Amino acid sequence: MKIVRSIAELKLEGDVGLVPTMGALHDGHIALFRAARAENDLVVASLFVNAAQFDEQTDFDAYARDEARDERIAADAGVDVLFAPSADEMYPAGFVTWVDVEGTGGEGVARPGHFRGVATVCLKLFNIVQPRCAYFGQKDAQQAAVIRKLVRDLNLDIEIRVHPTVRDADGLALSSRNVRLSDSERERALALPRALQAAIGSADPVATARAQLNGMNPDYVELLDFDGALLLAAAVRVGSTRLIDNVLLKGELR
Amino acid sequence: MKIVRSIAELKLEGDVGLVPTMGALHDGHIALFRAARAENDLVVASLFVNAAQFDEQTDFDAYARDEARDERIAADAGVDVLFAPSADEMYPAGFVTWVDVEGTGGEGVARPGHFRGVATVCLKLFNIVQPRCAYFGQKDAQQAAVIRKLVRDLNLDIEIRVHPTVRDADGLALSSRNVRLSDSERERALALPRALQAAIGSADPVATARAQLNGMNPDYVELLDFDGALLLAAAVRVGSTRLIDNVLLKGELR
Repeated sequence: MKIVRSIAELKLEGDVGLVPTMGALHDGHIALFRAARAENDLVVASLFVNAAQFDEQTDFDAYARDEARDERIAADAGVDVLFAPSADEMYPAGFVTWVDVEGTGGEGVARPGHFRGVATVCLKLFNIVQPRCAYFGQKDAQQAAVIRKLVRDLNLDIEIRVHPTVRDADGLALSSRNVRLSDSERERALALPRALQAAIGSADPVATARAQLNGMNPDYVELLDFDGALLLAAAVRVGSTRLIDNVLLKGELR
Repeated sequence: MKIVRSIAELKLEGDVGLVPTMGALHDGHIALFRAARAENDLVVASLFVNAAQFDEQTDFDAYARDEARDERIAADAGVDVLFAPSADEMYPAGFVTWVDVEGTGGEGVARPGHFRGVATVCLKLFNIVQPRCAYFGQKDAQQAAVIRKLVRDLNLDIEIRVHPTVRDADGLALSSRNVRLSDSERERALALPRALQAAIGSADPVATARAQLNGMNPDYVELLDFDGALLLAAAVRVGSTRLIDNVLLKGELR
């Protein structure tokens, strides 16, 4: 696997699959690497903890960073090129251009500026890497929906693939933030996937999920139309850690 | 010359030069077509009156539209493909993605939302046409500066060429809006290029130009750093018509 840190060095050929990541790689990312590996000549993973998409400095500071570990995981999963730029490479002095996707739902309302940072960095990565396909996880379904809108509205010739959420054996969706949970917090956090699961098939899935959250006060519990599929998505805070999750209620993810 | 109205039909090969226009073509556009003709395999002109960049509905409604005339002018100037999409083709139902370039100076302040519309439509045109070079006129220097920032910040592989302003014999910068001026308004409007010209070499060019505006109250008179060149730019209203112009004070346009 080649590790590239500057845009100028990044010379790619053939059909490229891009997996944008912020590192702290887990089995959810590995599933995306494998999907990209199966479908493209060249697999590029980006590793960039994008300050612009963090609405809380403490969350940015606490974000797990272990590049040596990430390099091993990416190489083992068949990534050809790891693009790991510095902040200055991505946002040089005088950077002033931002992309807004309007009406981004609960996650966009709960985290002001979050999707502006996501949309901007993803558009930059798309322009730098010029992939044929880019891969996102269902766990971040609203993010994937935002990126699909961006691709359509800005006439990008890129296919956005969404891969099902990967979960631990206890049902918690894999997330780079899970390592911050204490044992007791992790136990409480399980109410989130259980509440969403319990809502499948319910006449009022939002109310059902809210009632099952064991007294946790969610940032939102909401239905999300994702290219015709219907998702139930929620965000909760367990201690100082914010977790999101969603389940498919109707249709299928494409 | 081929006329194309849908994105799907637009199949281009070779190095492409793009001249984005809103029609109402004049010798300023023709100079851009000729520059593009000299430097590219294929010359594409877009013809789209972009509602999103008009801050005043009356200005949009009054914008001159004569596509048959524009087609003749573009064909005579060596344009290979005229891309003339409908509003629905460019902004289909559900369009929600916008590009903001921050700190866009006097013109951006005077026309809220204007550069958001310009940046968004230009990024779309760049993605649709995928030009090697795109051509803009010096008259819209702030627009060209915004587009240069967008190209740099979003990592687009496009060169932005800026061609000197083309003027009528009396010194008025060519503009699609000049046809709206009455004879007496046109006479008054000449104070704008004369005031800017008078400021070249002055110790305080902004004050000198303001003093020479024959009592017209400008939206702004300001210095503009354009990739190292220094411009003096101003906007005035003559009757109901708003005119902009600028002159080079130092350095050269690249």
